[in-house]
Amino acid sequence: MIPKFVKKTSKKPGLPPGSIVHVGRRREAVPRIAVIRYNAEAIGEETVDGRLVSSAQDPLAPAPSDGAGAAGVTWINIDGIHDPALLEAVGRRFAIHPLTLEDVAHAGQRPKLEDYGDYLYLVAKMLYFDAGDEAVHAEQVSFILTRGALLSFQETPVDVFDPVRERLRGGKGRIRGAGADYLLYALLDAMVDHYFPILEVFGDRLALLDEALVTDLERKTLDAIHEMIREMLFLRRQIAPLRDALGQMKDAENPLVDAGTGLYLGDVHDHATQVLDTIANFRDLLAGMLDRYLSLMSNRMNEVMKMLTMIATIFIPMTFLTSVYGMNFKHMPELDWRWGYFGLWGVLIALAALMLLYFKRKDWL
Amino acid sequence: MIPKFVKKTSKKPGLPPGSIVHVGRRREAVPRIAVIRYNAEAIGEETVDGRLVSSAQDPLAPAPSDGAGAAGVTWINIDGIHDPALLEAVGRRFAIHPLTLEDVAHAGQRPKLEDYGDYLYLVAKMLYFDAGDEAVHAEQVSFILTRGALLSFQETPVDVFDPVRERLRGGKGRIRGAGADYLLYALLDAMVDHYFPILEVFGDRLALLDEALVTDLERKTLDAIHEMIREMLFLRRQIAPLRDALGQMKDAENPLVDAGTGLYLGDVHDHATQVLDTIANFRDLLAGMLDRYLSLMSNRMNEVMKMLTMIATIFIPMTFLTSVYGMNFKHMPELDWRWGYFGLWGVLIALAALMLLYFKRKDWL
Amino acid sequence: MIPKFVKKTSKKPGLPPGSIVHVGRRREAVPRIAVIRYNAEAIGEETVDGRLVSSAQDPLAPAPSDGAGAAGVTWINIDGIHDPALLEAVGRRFAIHPLTLEDVAHAGQRPKLEDYGDYLYLVAKMLYFDAGDEAVHAEQVSFILTRGALLSFQETPVDVFDPVRERLRGGKGRIRGAGADYLLYALLDAMVDHYFPILEVFGDRLALLDEALVTDLERKTLDAIHEMIREMLFLRRQIAPLRDALGQMKDAENPLVDAGTGLYLGDVHDHATQVLDTIANFRDLLAGMLDRYLSLMSNRMNEVMKMLTMIATIFIPMTFLTSVYGMNFKHMPELDWRWGYFGLWGVLIALAALMLLYFKRKDWL
Amino acid sequence: MIPKFVKKTSKKPGLPPGSIVHVGRRREAVPRIAVIRYNAEAIGEETVDGRLVSSAQDPLAPAPSDGAGAAGVTWINIDGIHDPALLEAVGRRFAIHPLTLEDVAHAGQRPKLEDYGDYLYLVAKMLYFDAGDEAVHAEQVSFILTRGALLSFQETPVDVFDPVRERLRGGKGRIRGAGADYLLYALLDAMVDHYFPILEVFGDRLALLDEALVTDLERKTLDAIHEMIREMLFLRRQIAPLRDALGQMKDAENPLVDAGTGLYLGDVHDHATQVLDTIANFRDLLAGMLDRYLSLMSNRMNEVMKMLTMIATIFIPMTFLTSVYGMNFKHMPELDWRWGYFGLWGVLIALAALMLLYFKRKDWL
Amino acid sequence: MIPKFVKKTSKKPGLPPGSIVHVGRRREAVPRIAVIRYNAEAIGEETVDGRLVSSAQDPLAPAPSDGAGAAGVTWINIDGIHDPALLEAVGRRFAIHPLTLEDVAHAGQRPKLEDYGDYLYLVAKMLYFDAGDEAVHAEQVSFILTRGALLSFQETPVDVFDPVRERLRGGKGRIRGAGADYLLYALLDAMVDHYFPILEVFGDRLALLDEALVTDLERKTLDAIHEMIREMLFLRRQIAPLRDALGQMKDAENPLVDAGTGLYLGDVHDHATQVLDTIANFRDLLAGMLDRYLSLMSNRMNEVMKMLTMIATIFIPMTFLTSVYGMNFKHMPELDWRWGYFGLWGVLIALAALMLLYFKRKDWL
Repeated sequence: MIPKFVKKTSKKPGLPPGSIVHVGRRREAVPRIAVIRYNAEAIGEETVDGRLVSSAQDPLAPAPSDGAGAAGVTWINIDGIHDPALLEAVGRRFAIHPLTLEDVAHAGQRPKLEDYGDYLYLVAKMLYFDAGDEAVHAEQVSFILTRGALLSFQETPVDVFDPVRERLRGGKGRIRGAGADYLLYALLDAMVDHYFPILEVFGDRLALLDEALVTDLERKTLDAIHEMIREMLFLRRQIAPLRDALGQMKDAENPLVDAGTGLYLGDVHDHATQVLDTIANFRDLLAGMLDRYLSLMSNRMNEVMKMLTMIATIFIPMTFLTSVYGMNFKHMPELDWRWGYFGLWGVLIALAALMLLYFKRKDWL
Repeated sequence: MIPKFVKKTSKKPGLPPGSIVHVGRRREAVPRIAVIRYNAEAIGEETVDGRLVSSAQDPLAPAPSDGAGAAGVTWINIDGIHDPALLEAVGRRFAIHPLTLEDVAHAGQRPKLEDYGDYLYLVAKMLYFDAGDEAVHAEQVSFILTRGALLSFQETPVDVFDPVRERLRGGKGRIRGAGADYLLYALLDAMVDHYFPILEVFGDRLALLDEALVTDLERKTLDAIHEMIREMLFLRRQIAPLRDALGQMKDAENPLVDAGTGLYLGDVHDHATQVLDTIANFRDLLAGMLDRYLSLMSNRMNEVMKMLTMIATIFIPMTFLTSVYGMNFKHMPELDWRWGYFGLWGVLIALAALMLLYFKRKDWL
Repeated sequence: MIPKFVKKTSKKPGLPPGSIVHVGRRREAVPRIAVIRYNAEAIGEETVDGRLVSSAQDPLAPAPSDGAGAAGVTWINIDGIHDPALLEAVGRRFAIHPLTLEDVAHAGQRPKLEDYGDYLYLVAKMLYFDAGDEAVHAEQVSFILTRGALLSFQETPVDVFDPVRERLRGGKGRIRGAGADYLLYALLDAMVDHYFPILEVFGDRLALLDEALVTDLERKTLDAIHEMIREMLFLRRQIAPLRDALGQMKDAENPLVDAGTGLYLGDVHDHATQVLDTIANFRDLLAGMLDRYLSLMSNRMNEVMKMLTMIATIFIPMTFLTSVYGMNFKHMPELDWRWGYFGLWGVLIALAALMLLYFKRKDWL
Repeated sequence: MIPKFVKKTSKKPGLPPGSIVHVGRRREAVPRIAVIRYNAEAIGEETVDGRLVSSAQDPLAPAPSDGAGAAGVTWINIDGIHDPALLEAVGRRFAIHPLTLEDVAHAGQRPKLEDYGDYLYLVAKMLYFDAGDEAVHAEQVSFILTRGALLSFQETPVDVFDPVRERLRGGKGRIRGAGADYLLYALLDAMVDHYFPILEVFGDRLALLDEALVTDLERKTLDAIHEMIREMLFLRRQIAPLRDALGQMKDAENPLVDAGTGLYLGDVHDHATQVLDTIANFRDLLAGMLDRYLSLMSNRMNEVMKMLTMIATIFIPMTFLTSVYGMNFKHMPELDWRWGYFGLWGVLIALAALMLLYFKRKDWL
Repeated sequence: MIPKFVKKTSKKPGLPPGSIVHVGRRREAVPRIAVIRYNAEAIGEETVDGRLVSSAQDPLAPAPSDGAGAAGVTWINIDGIHDPALLEAVGRRFAIHPLTLEDVAHAGQRPKLEDYGDYLYLVAKMLYFDAGDEAVHAEQVSFILTRGALLSFQETPVDVFDPVRERLRGGKGRIRGAGADYLLYALLDAMVDHYFPILEVFGDRLALLDEALVTDLERKTLDAIHEMIREMLFLRRQIAPLRDALGQMKDAENPLVDAGTGLYLGDVHDHATQVLDTIANFRDLLAGMLDRYLSLMSNRMNEVMKMLTMIATIFIPMTFLTSVYGMNFKHMPELDWRWGYFGLWGVLIALAALMLLYFKRKDWL
């Protein structure tokens, strides 16, 4: 899990601002650009090869209006942020500020909302649970919401957007008739909804750990608690700034976001708050489990020490007595007594009984 | 108690917003709808089967005005949130936003207030102490306050509303002459008043634990403290957001809430604050008890170790001496001395006395 | 001290709001009502039996104006809040909201200020140190400040108001010429001034505990520290909300509070802040003492273990050696050596000396 | 150091407000009043005996204006706050509110700024390090800034003001030409500048403690850390409210404080912030040292226990074996073996070697 | 690392405000002044000896405007803040307030922004990792942004500005055409970008420590964790106030900062926030590692004690038995039994087996 916090996050210091330098996992594949244009009546999809973007034919042309004259929406989804030339071409086409492009290419952003007047720039994190290494991973997803178009940038293809695509194709619900801001909402909603199953995985793990605390106090339980605390820290760092960005967006006074969509964004904000609430709860519970682990260890140590002390306190004095009568002095009258040996046994047993009684009364047994 | 934090809270990700998916305990029973219509002069009650709601005859028609022309109030109480069709029918009838209905059906909400302009949506939690598993359980109760009507949704029938029903029927006090907002206040007041007896149960438990700390330091005391800390976390998570929602509602500028009712809501807000205050106090006290438990364990360990050390320090040197005279060397002059044996006893007793004196002066005895 | 946190605080849930239910210590005595009417020129006192309040003759009539036409002040002090009928009569006479009366009768309020427009309602706590059980106790004192009159309600007679009564009678200072708000200030000032001697008692106790930490680490020192932490929590819970209420009142825009009196209220607010500051300081010091106690316990345990280890490390190997020569093998050449025995003593002494040297160098001695 | 927190801070409860009661160290000396009158051109000094203040001749007359008509400044510095009559006389002369005088006489104030319209009242604390008891002590210094005059009140003569006096006499810099507010700034600056050398003393002590943690873990190191934590708490309590008061003063809209002087006050505010920052840093470092002390103690305990366990684990089984052959059974064939004794030695040595190897592999050696 | 917190930070108390007293590392070298004048079309550089500054020829003359009439920018970079005369000369030339100069000369400032109307004064810290002592060091860099000119003051030459110089010379990007505020942004960006590689060094160190926790629990691991916690505290203290100053600057309403540049400053602000976020994360992880270290120590102690207790519990009773039969009583029937010796061995082995079974069942093995 350690690599998570040593992710290389630095571009080369000293570069001028707006230098588009990819930071993130290295990828070789050519970015795939999926363009969906739709209005309430029609929908069209095409896939553009990342290398063709700057050609004469403009694959990024706006969507046609529908019959009622309502403007259509263009959704351009770009899988892969490692090609500066592509990002620059897109930037020119949509008049994106170089600083925005620099951030898009840099996978180490904190989730945030930036209002550039003509467009909104939102950074979010897609989280998924990798059953392989039993850890949560984060992918950066950037959105640029501009008039009549939504650009989304992903490090790797994310299938969490598929249900939204289906809804677009099916033409059901509000989505086809609404604007690009509603599309952004739908995508964010899909992302935040995917946080819940991750919490359930951790909830199950928490229940197992809690049980493990009762049955066996092994070191691996301790390690698992610490590991989970780290995961919670990681989740919170991904989600808390997103929640704040959503709060800003729902109250944004930018005309790009419709008041009606604000209501829906409030709902996503609410979900993100619920997620954070659960995370906070998990952290409280984990902190309690850690406290309990330490108390139980201390308890157990106490029991171990009691056992040692009882054994030692009973047998050391008895051994001393037998050792006395193992001495080879010439003149030891007791040795010649007829019942000396048996008498000593009596003394020894009485001594042990007394000690046991004492421990009994001290509640050690 | 663990199941509390792994409650399944996720709807299926990817569904469009406003999809009414029941999340909560599975129930088979048909939801029961109790409609009470009243004004200052008259009151009428009827029970509607959940399946009949969408029939031609409208069981949800508004209450008649009274003689003075003051509008009547309709209170529709729905026991059961697991029937999407019913919720949708109700939603259509009262022009409820689909996002609200989605939240009503989903029992995993945080308490909150949402102002949709035409109606207020409030989520609260009914808490009850189950003597069976000695734990507190929460039921979600949602309220929709709209012009002249109050809708309340419960997971299971909650008898905490019965006294309010009685007051309505009896026609005593302000309640019959006041509006739907006052009815909402009365129901919330009844719910918050029920939090106090729960606190008393925990107060008694706290006193018992405090005593147990003095008399016996058993592991089950530790477990009980940790258990109670969890319960306090649970209670706070249910009540703190409700308190905030009440604070918002009392200051709400929505005409649905009358200024006079705001005063009463301030009182409920005050009670919720008192409850949270007591919970915070309990948590401080529990934290102090945990600290004390650890100190006492450490104290006890110290005593155990002192005992062991005293026994060992007194007897090990003496055993060494007797062991010396148990050797079989040919030439050991002391063995032949007339008073060797008794002299050694003298030495041993003197040694033990010295040690005891030393421990006495070190305050170990 | 435990009973403090299980004080029954609940009225019977389900009662309508404004139901006056006494919660607090049971008292049988008839409440005593002391009425003082004064203006700059004259002062009159009378005592009214609680049962006569609702009779025809009105003992609560306003005070006459003075010669200059300045309105007089009526101070009605009621000892005893356990008689609902009396509270209701007073409430009717001064047009007090039922919710206020409910709170007056309920001794479990947090200190607070409520502005009802026509009157201000303030709840404060009188604290006194009971030398008997060496603990601080709190009595609830409620004030209702209305035009030309101040009502004060106490659970039991509180003699902290006597100096104010004396000043009223003596006619010295501003108090006779000022309004009811200044009288309220004077009473609050007297209450807050009484917090300081309590702090001094705790300051002395703190000094004793601090000394006890140095001289003897007994369990009762630990218990006393925890006990005092609880007392500090208790004090803070009584005083912090009062400080806030005072802050609100001094800045209140209600015409009942004069700007000049606001200055004086600022002074009481300042004193309450000083008290809280001292409490916070005591808590920091107590937390430091607890830390220190644990460190010292750990120190002492270390010393105990060192002692045990030294004794064991020196004597166990020596006892082993003597035990070797206590064996009964036929062929043990050393046993026959002329200087075997004395040689062994040499070895044993050298061994012990070496060990001591080793411990010396490890700084254990 | 304990007396610091049991300083008697209470006046006699029940006194009317504005009663001037001296609280602080008892002093017998007659307060000394030093009056300095200056303008840009001239400066005059005189010393007035505290008992003469109310005489006909007015030693507190305002300073003359300079040639350009700019008003002069009168600085009245009063050493000693234990004479109520003097304070009352001064109060009458400058129209000071009785509450202010009460606070001036009471040395237990928290630093604060109070704006009485006609004058500003500021309480600050002079801190000095007493090399005798190696502790920091605080003296209360109160300032009253009124039109054309500055009054300063000290418990005991403070030589920290001497450089300011020198600058006044020398007539260098802005000070002679500026108003009373600049003089107040200059005095505050001198006081805050004196906080830095105290921090340096503590910085040196911190470095020594840090070293002591590495070399020897004695109890006195622990005590010194706790002592220094207390000192830091004490310093913070003196300086934090002063910083806030300075912040208020620099932004005050009272015409008594010039905008230009506000800039200078901002500088003192900045210095106070630096001091608090350093104190916070020291506290963080001390908390880290405490953590480290405990970890090191635990480390050492571990080592002690390892040693004991190794000795016991090696020698107890060997002693058991030798003890076996010390038994006196008639039929013990081994005793008669030719190489029995030497064989046993072989076994014993092998056993010890095995154990050592085991400990080696467990990394205990 | 200790010297870091005992840096002498005090000027001599009592000096008048605006006294330029160098505080920081002593340097003998003559400060080097590098002046760069540029506009969109041309750039000129010259180096001025610090001692010549106040000569007749003005090396600090403003940069010429470009052809389009846009004002040029003068960047004056001063290496060395230890020469009061130089600072005074610069101050006079640019009308800098004496308090600003005092702060420039004093290397112990917290990062801050001060708006003097005619100029902005910003203090920042250059951080670099010294591979020699494996620690982070901070150099103070002060900026004064005034109309058409930027002054930068460094304690020692800092090569972090070189890439900006190169960009100026190359004339690429926005930098040559933009104003002095953009130059300030570029320099700040270069500084903050240099914070990231430092974080990577610490990230790597953190990963190593985390591994060390698993493999060996040595004291030096503990020391390294505490050392790194201190470094994080140090970094946070340098960067957090800078982040705040950047936040103020980007929102400053001073015309010296262009709205367009504000956008770029927002980007640096964002980077500083990312750095602080990472530092906070590192601190959380380090706190977790410390907790884990202590738990593991306690775990290990438990194991040590279990081992000791097992050995003692098995062998002490057995040794007692053999010791019994080593006694020299005349009448000990067992000694004469034919199979006494072998029978005893049977008893001993059974005893040991029983004990092992008991430990097995108690999960100690």
